[in-house]
Amino acid sequence: MTERAITWDARGGRGGSGAVRLLDQTLLPGRTEYLDVDTVDDLVAAIRALAVRGAPALGVAGALGVVVAMDEAAREGRDRAALEAAVDRVRDARPTAVNLRWGVEQVRSLVDDGREAVLEAALDLAAADEAANRLLSRHAADWLQERVGHRPLRVLTHCNAGLLAASAWGTALGVVRELRTRDAVEFVYADETRPLLQGARLTAWELAAEGIPHAVQVDGAAASTIVRGLVDCAVVGADRIAANGDVANKVGTLGVALACREAGIPLLVAAPWSTVDLATPDGSVIEIEERAGEEVTAFGGTRTAPEGSSGFNPAFDVTPARLVAAVATERGVVEPASGDRLG
Amino acid sequence: MTERAITWDARGGRGGSGAVRLLDQTLLPGRTEYLDVDTVDDLVAAIRALAVRGAPALGVAGALGVVVAMDEAAREGRDRAALEAAVDRVRDARPTAVNLRWGVEQVRSLVDDGREAVLEAALDLAAADEAANRLLSRHAADWLQERVGHRPLRVLTHCNAGLLAASAWGTALGVVRELRTRDAVEFVYADETRPLLQGARLTAWELAAEGIPHAVQVDGAAASTIVRGLVDCAVVGADRIAANGDVANKVGTLGVALACREAGIPLLVAAPWSTVDLATPDGSVIEIEERAGEEVTAFGGTRTAPEGSSGFNPAFDVTPARLVAAVATERGVVEPASGDRLG
Repeated sequence: MTERAITWDARGGRGGSGAVRLLDQTLLPGRTEYLDVDTVDDLVAAIRALAVRGAPALGVAGALGVVVAMDEAAREGRDRAALEAAVDRVRDARPTAVNLRWGVEQVRSLVDDGREAVLEAALDLAAADEAANRLLSRHAADWLQERVGHRPLRVLTHCNAGLLAASAWGTALGVVRELRTRDAVEFVYADETRPLLQGARLTAWELAAEGIPHAVQVDGAAASTIVRGLVDCAVVGADRIAANGDVANKVGTLGVALACREAGIPLLVAAPWSTVDLATPDGSVIEIEERAGEEVTAFGGTRTAPEGSSGFNPAFDVTPARLVAAVATERGVVEPASGDRLG
Repeated sequence: MTERAITWDARGGRGGSGAVRLLDQTLLPGRTEYLDVDTVDDLVAAIRALAVRGAPALGVAGALGVVVAMDEAAREGRDRAALEAAVDRVRDARPTAVNLRWGVEQVRSLVDDGREAVLEAALDLAAADEAANRLLSRHAADWLQERVGHRPLRVLTHCNAGLLAASAWGTALGVVRELRTRDAVEFVYADETRPLLQGARLTAWELAAEGIPHAVQVDGAAASTIVRGLVDCAVVGADRIAANGDVANKVGTLGVALACREAGIPLLVAAPWSTVDLATPDGSVIEIEERAGEEVTAFGGTRTAPEGSSGFNPAFDVTPARLVAAVATERGVVEPASGDRLG
């Protein structure tokens, strides 16, 4: 697959001086369209609408967002304070994924060195993300084969932690890709991941493109698929990993984790080290983004619940460390359920 | 609410001699339309499409289905063997809910006594279902208030086990209604229940009509809503209860049960005794209906997953007895998690 979730188009934007190019993930798999983003307003809107999503991709979006803010400030003649405020808006577009903030902060200190220095650092960050994903995928595949067996594995995944969630390759789906290169994937169950169906739309799209045997299931089926013994392991991404190994990820991950414990199979969390937030001691202090209830009570613009009913729509949940068999990053694998800490 | 999921219309049908009247639940909450069913083909199709669904309602559908089969056989001049085959088709329209088979068998032995005897028995069965639901709801509410506390409770429910799933009143939602009469309901979280959204469409419709404060959430949110302490108990219906207390219910119930154990709150299963199948020793022998994958990979006729992706669509799961704090029937409450058996 050659599609990338987020790149820098050096000749894009209204001035032709560069823009963030986003594969609009709200339209997949039906339509493959790109957004050319050269204002902070548009970037924040794209992030909030999940046109670009996934922790590693949000890191890249944060870093490139600083370039967008600088270009816009120059174009509009804004002062430094206005620029910093715009950068803050990018940083705060979504609260749970630590990578967005991390990506901004990685390059923010270079603003005084000029726009090219910031752009170069942001592109380096994207390249490093791909390298990290490939490396953590090898670590994870080694761990899974050691732990579960050197045979084709049946894997359950939740949401999309593929190349669409990253600059390239992917995290949880990166692990599946790595296992595939080792002829070690039998089948993947992809939870559809309501309300926005990242599993049915995005993960299935990636798996279909790779020719990996798979099926989409409703999120409610995950527990019984696991407990009935239909899978050997669950592999997911993460939006933030606390120092003690608690993991914030797409809502529904906790249910997958509880079922894995019941079945005695491992839950492996695959994420770049940038997702680890040592300033977060444990999951209790992670802010859980609550999104609009209409994402739940309507589908494709059509109301499904009665008008008198509201939707409760937490976007993430927190899986306690004791349910996380392994966290694979580019630095290696730690085992929170066995008492390992991230820092 | 005066709507009923299933009634007998004595002047319905093409001969004006009677028909099963079904509130078409595939159209709720958007449209309130009734189906007038006077052939076995149409009844089987309505059951398979879930125009009528829910274990208690299927019991009534099975019993009234025998009347439909008799009327059709008389109309078409079919012999007894053809009539029995038609009754078998009603019985076997769906495999998991034991009530459908039970409803058929309750009245089948009366065929030799004539059509009026069968019809009277079927109507008695519907009346008895309503009485059973009201009684089991009182038993369940007593148990919950004793166990959880005499205060307004926050309840999570999965799928629809309301009056739409029964001849009237409902089972799990019957318990909520009973608690409501005691001023003991604070809030209800209704899992939307993909793929067919019985929670978002039907449970929310019933709760909205009753004016009970509630929100719809995606099924993936159930685990964290429970583990975060947002609810005091979970109350669900059942499609079949085995002798040892294992419970087959809508897929996703197992995940609710695992989260309840994690949170230390009770899962109560509310069902009429007709849902208990003492011939089923435990859940391992319950056939799990697998429905068409397109229910998962499409929504409202629009494909959501890529064309190359299939759907895995088990309609039910089995929750082991050790996770079921209480089973409330009209005969009282048993506590499978504490070692009680149903028979």
